[in-house]
Amino acid sequence: MLQIISIFFFIFGSMKRITIKEIARQAGVSVGTVDRVLHKRGEVAEATKDLVLKIAKEGNYTTNVFARNLKLNKVYQIAVILPLDNDYWKTQRQGIEQSAEEYESLGMVLKFYPFDRSNQGSFLTKAAMAIDGEPDAVILAPLMEEEATDICGRLKSKAIPFVFVDSNLEEVAPLAFIGQDSVQSGYLAARLLNYGYGEGHDAWILKYTDFDSLNKTIDERIDGFRQYYVDQGWNAGRIHEINVENQVKLTEVLNSIKGEGMHLFVPNSRSYQIVSMIDESNLARKKRIVGYDLVKENIAPLENGHVDFIIDQNPNLQGNLSVQVLYKQLIANAPIKQYQYMPLEVVSKENLRFANSYREEPEEVVG
Amino acid sequence: MLQIISIFFFIFGSMKRITIKEIARQAGVSVGTVDRVLHKRGEVAEATKDLVLKIAKEGNYTTNVFARNLKLNKVYQIAVILPLDNDYWKTQRQGIEQSAEEYESLGMVLKFYPFDRSNQGSFLTKAAMAIDGEPDAVILAPLMEEEATDICGRLKSKAIPFVFVDSNLEEVAPLAFIGQDSVQSGYLAARLLNYGYGEGHDAWILKYTDFDSLNKTIDERIDGFRQYYVDQGWNAGRIHEINVENQVKLTEVLNSIKGEGMHLFVPNSRSYQIVSMIDESNLARKKRIVGYDLVKENIAPLENGHVDFIIDQNPNLQGNLSVQVLYKQLIANAPIKQYQYMPLEVVSKENLRFANSYREEPEEVVG
Repeated sequence: MLQIISIFFFIFGSMKRITIKEIARQAGVSVGTVDRVLHKRGEVAEATKDLVLKIAKEGNYTTNVFARNLKLNKVYQIAVILPLDNDYWKTQRQGIEQSAEEYESLGMVLKFYPFDRSNQGSFLTKAAMAIDGEPDAVILAPLMEEEATDICGRLKSKAIPFVFVDSNLEEVAPLAFIGQDSVQSGYLAARLLNYGYGEGHDAWILKYTDFDSLNKTIDERIDGFRQYYVDQGWNAGRIHEINVENQVKLTEVLNSIKGEGMHLFVPNSRSYQIVSMIDESNLARKKRIVGYDLVKENIAPLENGHVDFIIDQNPNLQGNLSVQVLYKQLIANAPIKQYQYMPLEVVSKENLRFANSYREEPEEVVG
Repeated sequence: MLQIISIFFFIFGSMKRITIKEIARQAGVSVGTVDRVLHKRGEVAEATKDLVLKIAKEGNYTTNVFARNLKLNKVYQIAVILPLDNDYWKTQRQGIEQSAEEYESLGMVLKFYPFDRSNQGSFLTKAAMAIDGEPDAVILAPLMEEEATDICGRLKSKAIPFVFVDSNLEEVAPLAFIGQDSVQSGYLAARLLNYGYGEGHDAWILKYTDFDSLNKTIDERIDGFRQYYVDQGWNAGRIHEINVENQVKLTEVLNSIKGEGMHLFVPNSRSYQIVSMIDESNLARKKRIVGYDLVKENIAPLENGHVDFIIDQNPNLQGNLSVQVLYKQLIANAPIKQYQYMPLEVVSKENLRFANSYREEPEEVVG
C-alpha cells in the first residue's frame, strides 16, 4: 500500500522535481549529456555519469513519462508466468491485469504463460516459451525452487529483469520480491493455533502430497511453524506432520486424531476442503483450524466458525505492485524497493468483512 | 488502500474518458450547457441536468484537473480539526500533510485547528475559528457527539463539505467517513481476549475517566465487546467495566484482580500505560491484554509479550484518504465512496514488523 501511495505521489510530485536543464547546470555539462546518462545511451565518462545520477537522485528527478513515451512510442512486453488454477492465483492475475490496463497507455502490455503447478515440466516449458518471446520484463511465481533458479539464470543472461510474486528465492536476487515472509507467516500460525496453551498443544500439519510438495512456500511456512515450538522450548514431538494423499486418506487421518482437541494447521488455501472432510462427530469437537488465503471457498467455513483464522496475503495488491515495479524500472527510471513484504493479515469471522481481500459475493437465489 | 489505487488509476485513466464535447453531442445540448451542469453554475433545466450527469457518469467523465486548475487559479482552503496530543493523532496529521503536500500544486492548502480532547469548549472554539475562516472544506474528528453534531449543523448551513476521520456520526451524513467500525472492532477484541474459553472469561475493561469519557469511539468499542458476550450466550456479569481515574487508582484496580488470570481490554491507545502499572507479581501471572493502535509506546509491550494483540486503525492511511476525498469533491468532480472502512488489523508480536502502521525506530545508543 505504501508503495502505491508513493507511486501515486510520484506522478503528482513529478511536476515539482528537478529538470534535465537544472541537472545539466548543476553538473556543468550539456543537456545532451544528461539525457544520455538518464536514458543509458551513448558513452559518458564514469565520473560525469556518477555526478549526473547523484544530482538527479537528490533532486528527485523522474523522467516525464508522458512526454518520453510519446516520443519513443515504445511498447514494453511483459511476460507473466503464474499458475492460474485457483481463486488465489486468479486474483493475482486480476491485480496484474488491473494495473496493466491502466499502464497500457504508457506502453506496457502483458502476455500470460500459465503453468500447471503439479508439473515441473509445464513450468519449464511455459517459461521457455516466455523467454523465446523476448519480453522486456517478466513477472514470475518461483514456486519450484530448482526450476525457477534455472529459469532466472536464463533471464539474467539475457538481461531481462524479473519480479517475483508470492514466493522468493533470495539467492537469485530478483528486481523485487512482492509477497509474505513465509517463515514468519508459519510462525504466526503456530502462535494463533496455540494461543492460551502454556505448554503447546498437539498440532497436525496437513500437507498435501500433490502440487504442494513442489511448492517451497508451503515448506517455509511449516519451518516457521516448527520454529515457534523451538523458541517456546516446547516439545516438537507434539507436531504431527501428515501427508494427505487424497480426500479419502484425509478422512481417515482426521478420524484418527484422538485427545482433547484437534488443532490443525493447513499451510495452503485448502482449509475448506479439510473442513468438508471432518465428519459430524468431529465437527462438534473442540478444535482449532488456522489456514491461508481468503479464496471464496474459505469464506463459509470462516463465517460458520469451523476455521478460526485465515492468514491472508492480499494477492490483488501483489499483482498491482508487480506491474508498478516494472513500470518504475522500464518507463519511469524510478527507485525500486527490492523487498516489498505484504502484511501477515489475520482474518477471523469477526473482521472478515473489513479484510483487504474480502469481496462481497452476489447473493444467490435459493430455489 | 483500494481507494488509493482507484484515485491513482483515475489520474492515469483520465486520458481515456469522455470529453465535454462528446457529452454535449450525446445530450444534444451545447458545450456551454454541459459546462454549467458540471461546474454547478447558472440555470439549467432539471431534465437536461439529469441527462448530462447521466452521460458524464456513464462515460466516466472527470474534469481535466490540470487544465481546469490552471484556468481557475483557485486555491482551496481545507480546515483540519483534530486533537494532536498523541502519536495516533500525529500520524493522522502526517497522513493528511503528506497527501496535501502533493495536492498543493493542484490547489489545496491546509489549515490546522488542533483541539484539546479533554475539553468540549476547546473543540467548539477551534471549530468556530475554522468556520469563521470560511474554508472550502473541513476534515474533522467528531469525537464528542453533541458538540460535533452542532458543528456539522453549522457547516451544512454554510454548504461547507466535511469528512470525518476516526469516528463517525451516521445521522450527520458526512461527505465521507474514513475509519473503523468501532462496534465491530470491540467485538473482535472480545473474541481475541476469550479465544479458547468455551464459557467466556472474566474480563476487565479499563476505561479512563479523562478525555476518553468524551470519546464516543471508546463507548462503541465497549458496546461491541459486550455484544460478543451476548451473542455467545455468556454471562455478561463476567465483564467488569472499571473507571480509571489516574495511575495510582489503576494500580489498586490491577492488584485487586483475583482469580485464574487477568484478561484486560484496553479500549484506547494506552495499553503501554496499563502494562507499566502492573507490578512484578502480576506481570508473571497468566494474563491477556488486547488494546489499540501501534503508537510507538505500544511497540515494546507488544514485543516483550505483555500485550497480546493490538487492533490497529492505520491512521496514516486515514489521513491520506481524507485529503483524497476532498480532492475528488472540490477539484476532480469524481465519485466518492461515503463509507471507507479501515481493516480491523490484528497485530501481535509475530506479525508486528509487517503491520501497515509499523515504523522501525532508529536504534538508540545504550550508554
